[in-house]
Amino acid sequence: MRLILKMRPVGILRLSHVDITAPDLELAAAYYTEVLGLDISERTDDENGDRIFFKCWDERDHHCLTIRHDTRVGLDRFAFKVDHPGDLDLFETRIERAGTPVRRVGASEEVGQGESIRFEIPSGHEMELVYDVQKVGGRLPLVNPAPIVPNLRGIAPPRIDHLLVHAEEVPEAARFFQDVLDFRLTEQLLDGGGHQTIAFLERSAKPHDIAFVQGTNGALHHFSFWLDDWDHVRRAADLLAYHGVTIDIGPTRHGLTRGSTIYFFDPMGTRNEVFSGGYRPDPDFPTITWTDDRAGRAVFYYEGVLNERFASVHT
Amino acid sequence: MRLILKMRPVGILRLSHVDITAPDLELAAAYYTEVLGLDISERTDDENGDRIFFKCWDERDHHCLTIRHDTRVGLDRFAFKVDHPGDLDLFETRIERAGTPVRRVGASEEVGQGESIRFEIPSGHEMELVYDVQKVGGRLPLVNPAPIVPNLRGIAPPRIDHLLVHAEEVPEAARFFQDVLDFRLTEQLLDGGGHQTIAFLERSAKPHDIAFVQGTNGALHHFSFWLDDWDHVRRAADLLAYHGVTIDIGPTRHGLTRGSTIYFFDPMGTRNEVFSGGYRPDPDFPTITWTDDRAGRAVFYYEGVLNERFASVHT
Amino acid sequence: MRLILKMRPVGILRLSHVDITAPDLELAAAYYTEVLGLDISERTDDENGDRIFFKCWDERDHHCLTIRHDTRVGLDRFAFKVDHPGDLDLFETRIERAGTPVRRVGASEEVGQGESIRFEIPSGHEMELVYDVQKVGGRLPLVNPAPIVPNLRGIAPPRIDHLLVHAEEVPEAARFFQDVLDFRLTEQLLDGGGHQTIAFLERSAKPHDIAFVQGTNGALHHFSFWLDDWDHVRRAADLLAYHGVTIDIGPTRHGLTRGSTIYFFDPMGTRNEVFSGGYRPDPDFPTITWTDDRAGRAVFYYEGVLNERFASVHT
Amino acid sequence: MRLILKMRPVGILRLSHVDITAPDLELAAAYYTEVLGLDISERTDDENGDRIFFKCWDERDHHCLTIRHDTRVGLDRFAFKVDHPGDLDLFETRIERAGTPVRRVGASEEVGQGESIRFEIPSGHEMELVYDVQKVGGRLPLVNPAPIVPNLRGIAPPRIDHLLVHAEEVPEAARFFQDVLDFRLTEQLLDGGGHQTIAFLERSAKPHDIAFVQGTNGALHHFSFWLDDWDHVRRAADLLAYHGVTIDIGPTRHGLTRGSTIYFFDPMGTRNEVFSGGYRPDPDFPTITWTDDRAGRAVFYYEGVLNERFASVHT
Repeated sequence: MRLILKMRPVGILRLSHVDITAPDLELAAAYYTEVLGLDISERTDDENGDRIFFKCWDERDHHCLTIRHDTRVGLDRFAFKVDHPGDLDLFETRIERAGTPVRRVGASEEVGQGESIRFEIPSGHEMELVYDVQKVGGRLPLVNPAPIVPNLRGIAPPRIDHLLVHAEEVPEAARFFQDVLDFRLTEQLLDGGGHQTIAFLERSAKPHDIAFVQGTNGALHHFSFWLDDWDHVRRAADLLAYHGVTIDIGPTRHGLTRGSTIYFFDPMGTRNEVFSGGYRPDPDFPTITWTDDRAGRAVFYYEGVLNERFASVHT
Repeated sequence: MRLILKMRPVGILRLSHVDITAPDLELAAAYYTEVLGLDISERTDDENGDRIFFKCWDERDHHCLTIRHDTRVGLDRFAFKVDHPGDLDLFETRIERAGTPVRRVGASEEVGQGESIRFEIPSGHEMELVYDVQKVGGRLPLVNPAPIVPNLRGIAPPRIDHLLVHAEEVPEAARFFQDVLDFRLTEQLLDGGGHQTIAFLERSAKPHDIAFVQGTNGALHHFSFWLDDWDHVRRAADLLAYHGVTIDIGPTRHGLTRGSTIYFFDPMGTRNEVFSGGYRPDPDFPTITWTDDRAGRAVFYYEGVLNERFASVHT
Repeated sequence: MRLILKMRPVGILRLSHVDITAPDLELAAAYYTEVLGLDISERTDDENGDRIFFKCWDERDHHCLTIRHDTRVGLDRFAFKVDHPGDLDLFETRIERAGTPVRRVGASEEVGQGESIRFEIPSGHEMELVYDVQKVGGRLPLVNPAPIVPNLRGIAPPRIDHLLVHAEEVPEAARFFQDVLDFRLTEQLLDGGGHQTIAFLERSAKPHDIAFVQGTNGALHHFSFWLDDWDHVRRAADLLAYHGVTIDIGPTRHGLTRGSTIYFFDPMGTRNEVFSGGYRPDPDFPTITWTDDRAGRAVFYYEGVLNERFASVHT
Repeated sequence: MRLILKMRPVGILRLSHVDITAPDLELAAAYYTEVLGLDISERTDDENGDRIFFKCWDERDHHCLTIRHDTRVGLDRFAFKVDHPGDLDLFETRIERAGTPVRRVGASEEVGQGESIRFEIPSGHEMELVYDVQKVGGRLPLVNPAPIVPNLRGIAPPRIDHLLVHAEEVPEAARFFQDVLDFRLTEQLLDGGGHQTIAFLERSAKPHDIAFVQGTNGALHHFSFWLDDWDHVRRAADLLAYHGVTIDIGPTRHGLTRGSTIYFFDPMGTRNEVFSGGYRPDPDFPTITWTDDRAGRAVFYYEGVLNERFASVHT
């Protein structure tokens, strides 16, 4: 009887992985392990291409980042993890009712995960939902774990945090995420005409799991890794500069999310971020609105203006 | 049609407020505003007693702490907020089916909130669930907010984080929270015989919203406020010492939760904590288990042993 | 007998005060107290002009900054404190032997200090040496002081740290400071032809008390206040942005000195800095040399390039 | 002519090295390299014993710590570096005039340094003064150095900071350091009868280079390593606990010096400290006095009381 009254699963849990392409896998491997400090969980060369799968030290899932060899730098797709096996069916129905075709990916078709569904969101990106991800474990044990892992290499973020993509029509993309995927709108920027040009959306008690900024459909602005505090942000900047990595901007602070940040580019040109801080929104968190005249402070609170490169460069 | 497929509410969201008693409300007001840096949202003297309602600067709800005048220092109850109006009915049914009587508290019976349900949990504490809390707003606006509030007074935590209470039978209390209230067990300590003596439980992607430690039924060990980072923990210690507040232990670090912490006592003897850091568990987070021989490191990672006062003093 | 063998005084101790001009003293007072968090120790309007004297909370001397009303924004002079009354005579002799006229300023001619000597250094700036400064005390007592002052307003640096001025001929200015004033050269930048274009010089176990950068003789680039750590640098950035102050660059890190920094402008256009970290050079510290191809990293380690404004704007 | 007027050398510069004994050199080597993160600059087994010489990564001198094999754990001596070759003669004269015999140690008698003088200070410790130390360089180059060394192992303090020893008669020891060695008294604790029981003395613009606390003549309380900020103090605590090192107390804060601290024991029982923060005293810094009723806050500001172990355990 109790089961009948059991609360339903929460649906989408978190960003699972971002799948990008790069022309030089060796360079990518060197950068993402030595500088960013990720672990390689697997490397495959199959019908889906020549790929390296990366994970953060405190993640238990198989990977949070896939890099596939390709002559161009770009985004294949991004995947979110759902809480319950039945969520795939449920979202398939909802997404198709919203007029979007859904493709089932069989359990044996992908590396490190089971069955999933893929579909194109209104901003033209391919998105995936997956429940069954291979649990490879983090660097800490589940019995008597120390609170630290000593001597980690590079920046070593504990986990991936979010991604930001472009959309020609931000309101359309945001609405899809709110209505069909049950995301909550934490923050938005409205232009002078009241048109939504930035939308931040979350599913995991964070300021954002995904964000849309007005721009070219299908484009990736950046994906972001979590750091525990401001001192780790400095250490990240130290290491980036030490290794000659191009810093786009930062260390600085966002008005949106309140978080501390550095944007920088991997050697192939994909923008990365390290991010720390911010508030913890519950589902009753009211949406914060930014007006166009404060757009500079919204994005970069210290500078108060957007730099040209931040607004124009994407992959 | 879409509504039918809409995901169900998530149930319990977070710790809403802790209601304690103290013999000197003026002293309590002075301490909780000047040293801890809370705001007073209301003071009432009605049939429920002479009470002060406090809130943190980044909380939008009416209060996170109530102090009622009483000759003894103790705990009246603690309340958690649910996500959906219908959750009260649903939990009422589930709690009663679990054999626990539930009392409805009418919308006009309490200050700062609407209807709620109250019941005794297996550890003998009175617990409340509430959906409708009065939104009084935080110190930052919802349009173009700065990421900081300058010149806050005292420690000024942005929000309450969790509470820890005692239970004669921890497994019984934890089971009730897991089975009936849908909490997830993030960490546990097992004694030499495999008996669970500490249980950490969460509903909001944090290491704990409530914890049980073996001890006297009905007793409060501490409630805890969030700080954003380790530097704020130091600043809290500076201010506590400056004001002559008795520090129980800290700044130190927990093995359980990985969080940084200071325990200290308000002038009436109730233990407070400031807490920062830790991981972010999703519902698929596996339970971490500590064994008895590591109990010291589990609780105080730096010291490696429990101090006598920590284990024995409660209110 | 012991006195004969007593070690001689160490000569110049530290930067004492920077004397600048500004067209709006009320605006200057508001900014330097509310945003920067200095205290006003005195305001005078006499034959030396309408002036405000500022000090930091942990300084015991009368002032570290003087702002004199003038229609132009500029630098009147800067003063260093010497250790021994006899040092004024000694330096007067040495400076005159180096071919530079010295002017004695009588004990009653200036506010907050006794007798001093003034002279023009090779870069065209007026410099002052003073022994007798009025001790007004810091905010902490000399008996049983707490390690903090709670509720300080604004950025509230504990003390002034250094200044950077321009020189057409850096080597000439640096040589004067090394040979005549006994400064030590901690770091230098050499251009492609081996010509010294930046010189950092110290007298107080810090990476620099004064620095020269190639540029217009007589110009002030910035003066700088000490902050205790990187978290205070963030808090400074928060407050600067909150108050709408123009940040030149930062938070970032210098290669030269290793210090963390923010450059920003007071409302009249004088560049300020907050600075933290760096090494502690003793007199046996070897000079660090930067080559021209690393000039960007030398000045701004994270960015790797000089911004145009940094190199061109001075007062 | 200029030379005649040149300021005299400043005398004693800094703590150069502490020479201790331990019964297990292999254990000492493992701890001081892996946990503390020092480098071994040399190991010798000669007429002065079987010894390991350690240095910090940012020190240029040959060593800051010597551990000699001996069945007992203890202190051989400590050495301070002087600024000028002639300082040895000068101090020899002064020390002998103060009634203390001085022994010359020839240039070839010691490892990593040239000629020195040794003598017994009033507290019964052997002290050494040395000018000529072998420069082996730090981990950063002198041309275009990065501000960090990535991937340092263990706590990795940049340099040694100070030591604290016991004295039966603190005033006598302090007076010797002030009158004969030109140290300055930054802070002192007076007991109820006005008798000086703690004296902090400095030569290098720090709160202390050496301190005396009332106790057994000849005993070593601890020596201390510098850390750059509070976050490094936490990281040190993490690593100490990770390696099972016994923490005496901390992370906490001193009232004396204002510094942040952890005390802990090396595996042989010698107390170490990591220390960060504090003010920067110039020679005109007035002595701070603590009264007996505030002795707890003076030593441990957060705890407000001395722990028994801190006061009683020494080597």
